[in-house]
Amino acid sequence: MTQTSAADEVARRPRIVIIGGGFGGLTAAQGLARAEADITLIDRRNHHLFQPLLYQVATAVLSPAQIAQPIRTIVRNNANTRVVLDDVTGIDLEARIARTTQEGEVPFDYLIVAAGASHDYFGRDDWSAFAPGLKSLEDATNIRRRILEAFERAETAATQEERAAYLTFCIVGGGPTGVEMAGAIAELARRTLRGEFRRFDPADTKVILIEGGPRVLSSMPDSLSGKAHRGLEKLGVTVRTGKMVTNCQPDRIELGEEAIACRTIIWAAGVRASPAGNWLGAEQDRAGRVIVGQDLSIPGHPDIFVIGDTAAVFTQKGIPVPGVAPAAKQQGTFVAELIATRLSGGDTASRRFVYKDQGNLATIGRSQAVVHMGRLKLSGTLAWWFWGVVHIFFLIDFRNRISVLLDWLLTYLTYGRGSRLITDPPRPKGPDIT
Amino acid sequence: MTQTSAADEVARRPRIVIIGGGFGGLTAAQGLARAEADITLIDRRNHHLFQPLLYQVATAVLSPAQIAQPIRTIVRNNANTRVVLDDVTGIDLEARIARTTQEGEVPFDYLIVAAGASHDYFGRDDWSAFAPGLKSLEDATNIRRRILEAFERAETAATQEERAAYLTFCIVGGGPTGVEMAGAIAELARRTLRGEFRRFDPADTKVILIEGGPRVLSSMPDSLSGKAHRGLEKLGVTVRTGKMVTNCQPDRIELGEEAIACRTIIWAAGVRASPAGNWLGAEQDRAGRVIVGQDLSIPGHPDIFVIGDTAAVFTQKGIPVPGVAPAAKQQGTFVAELIATRLSGGDTASRRFVYKDQGNLATIGRSQAVVHMGRLKLSGTLAWWFWGVVHIFFLIDFRNRISVLLDWLLTYLTYGRGSRLITDPPRPKGPDIT
Repeated sequence: MTQTSAADEVARRPRIVIIGGGFGGLTAAQGLARAEADITLIDRRNHHLFQPLLYQVATAVLSPAQIAQPIRTIVRNNANTRVVLDDVTGIDLEARIARTTQEGEVPFDYLIVAAGASHDYFGRDDWSAFAPGLKSLEDATNIRRRILEAFERAETAATQEERAAYLTFCIVGGGPTGVEMAGAIAELARRTLRGEFRRFDPADTKVILIEGGPRVLSSMPDSLSGKAHRGLEKLGVTVRTGKMVTNCQPDRIELGEEAIACRTIIWAAGVRASPAGNWLGAEQDRAGRVIVGQDLSIPGHPDIFVIGDTAAVFTQKGIPVPGVAPAAKQQGTFVAELIATRLSGGDTASRRFVYKDQGNLATIGRSQAVVHMGRLKLSGTLAWWFWGVVHIFFLIDFRNRISVLLDWLLTYLTYGRGSRLITDPPRPKGPDIT
Repeated sequence: MTQTSAADEVARRPRIVIIGGGFGGLTAAQGLARAEADITLIDRRNHHLFQPLLYQVATAVLSPAQIAQPIRTIVRNNANTRVVLDDVTGIDLEARIARTTQEGEVPFDYLIVAAGASHDYFGRDDWSAFAPGLKSLEDATNIRRRILEAFERAETAATQEERAAYLTFCIVGGGPTGVEMAGAIAELARRTLRGEFRRFDPADTKVILIEGGPRVLSSMPDSLSGKAHRGLEKLGVTVRTGKMVTNCQPDRIELGEEAIACRTIIWAAGVRASPAGNWLGAEQDRAGRVIVGQDLSIPGHPDIFVIGDTAAVFTQKGIPVPGVAPAAKQQGTFVAELIATRLSGGDTASRRFVYKDQGNLATIGRSQAVVHMGRLKLSGTLAWWFWGVVHIFFLIDFRNRISVLLDWLLTYLTYGRGSRLITDPPRPKGPDIT
């Protein structure tokens, strides 16, 4: 709670509240580090997460801490910034207050909503229990546990049918996350687990990548999609394009008439924006993203901005800006500059956000990736090295950089994985419980 | 389920079941790697845990994966050994069968019970919710979350009293774990968190180590206990010896008449053996440890052995063998040799386990440790380096060795900690819920 008297009002510095410490919110905070303002950065988590490598936590390559960094450590030297671990429950546009669980009420003059996104099951939220998605560290360790446990249960399975179902992994969604998960599970089975089981050969594992559209990595040129498709098949992944999932159950996945017996389904298909649109009472698109103006503010509220995966932003040509880290960071920088200009009395009426496409990349497996940047199209080993260098470079923390580099080096040399932990209670036996 | 006909009985190799993949069970499995037998190693976890460094996971220095290694990776080359992730629920001594959740029934000719220990609240199990102990990786990440969240809640506390309670950490038990936890929390507050909060100075954190006996590290000589005591005080830890805890609550700890307002209590006081004694119907001591004979078998069952923290073993002088890793490993080796001798037709009637004390060591903080080995007594920087070298040396895996070494180096140089993650939902506000 904050009570401010009229006298305080005159003296106080402008208050900027940033909701979310992901790529968008953190970049905005850094851009405002020297601003004459009091900034409150609110996040439900104590850490900034480097989501592009989250699939490597889910597949036991990296530990959670290697791709996360405490938000308050990152901004510790920003004297104008206070970090609060808190849950935003609503926003009062008239009173200019964000409501939260811990602080109660946090007043603002400027608000930046960068609250990210979660999974979308297209109206079938009941599937989430059987087909978890990958957004947070908890999601990643949950999926890691399910994958590793499936192999353990294959070792103790009573029948061949049960064993085969445990050794079948279905990944729904052929975007970068789905492609990277499929490749990483296939390599886990064929390389890392070799020789560790007595009742089956892990090389018999089936990994099935299911994509509703005609090709995987649809944001890439046709030729690179094709290379990714063939690269996955070489790793032993079955790629099923043009297939819609009609049902997910603990013991099977259904594609129309066809049912595939499997015990592990991973959802990499849909994304839904955080409920910020509801808090703001602003217009949203089908995925719940807030429709923002060209300066990323919401209509009628020039001091309230929505950025990153929570916002629906379009390029000059009317194409949606993709929900990727570079887009969120560009938006964070844009809004920080806009607010800083206003704070120093400048005019920002003509400002409009322009997205610079920095390209697309996805890794398929050892020594295999695809890269598309402007006219450059790369695949194979060179693309894989490029992918690795870029990801190390963008990791926030020096410690994380060298520790990820070390783990990648050891995984490359030994095929071992550094983080093969099942850290929650094993799931009970039987098809009716997950 | 296993059905064996009389013909099979003649042909089959002896079956050895090992319950537990800790230091005792794993050492036994390795000692029997070349034995003409079928070995089943059962553990509830998929990983062997290097417990001596568990407190560093709880205090955000190391990640869980750095001190754990999949059991089936460790014994992958033991062709006679099958690893099963399973829960033992009972043992039928007459039928010579271990009952489990997944496999159902696992028959044995030889049985090695190495099921470890958990916390003992001396009849006050209701305290466990407010005063968690440290035995598993989940325990460690749970305690890590509580410690880091306490600082977060101090930042959002509404009153100074509430803030002070969040900044008070009580550790119950002045053995090595309690001493190491207290030192690590004090250094976290004073060094790592410096400058990261806006509403308080982390250096104001109170760390209180409570020990019922007259001195900390009671298994060490008086002089080293004194050095540890003074070393802790130099780090800002308040050491309270001769104090018994009479109550633990979410918002306070009580020592008789005295109540200390605190939100974080860590239990490092009591150890209780796993329920193996009940399964075996064997005599147990007060801590639930199975009373074994001089060859570590149980009375009347020369083929059933209990080792490690699950067993009550005594030296020639009648002193209890301590529940430490070297003792468990020596017992695992002893039992493996004994069984191997019997398998090859040798006589083992005169075998008796003799414990070799390899010394005691505990770290207090940066450049401070105490070491006692035979006549050698070390303290200070030299002891600290010795402690570090010994722990790196005994880590099971090459990858873990270099990754721990790297993290220690970076922590030494920067005071930063590599693993400051809160990865479960924040606990709700208020004193009545933890």
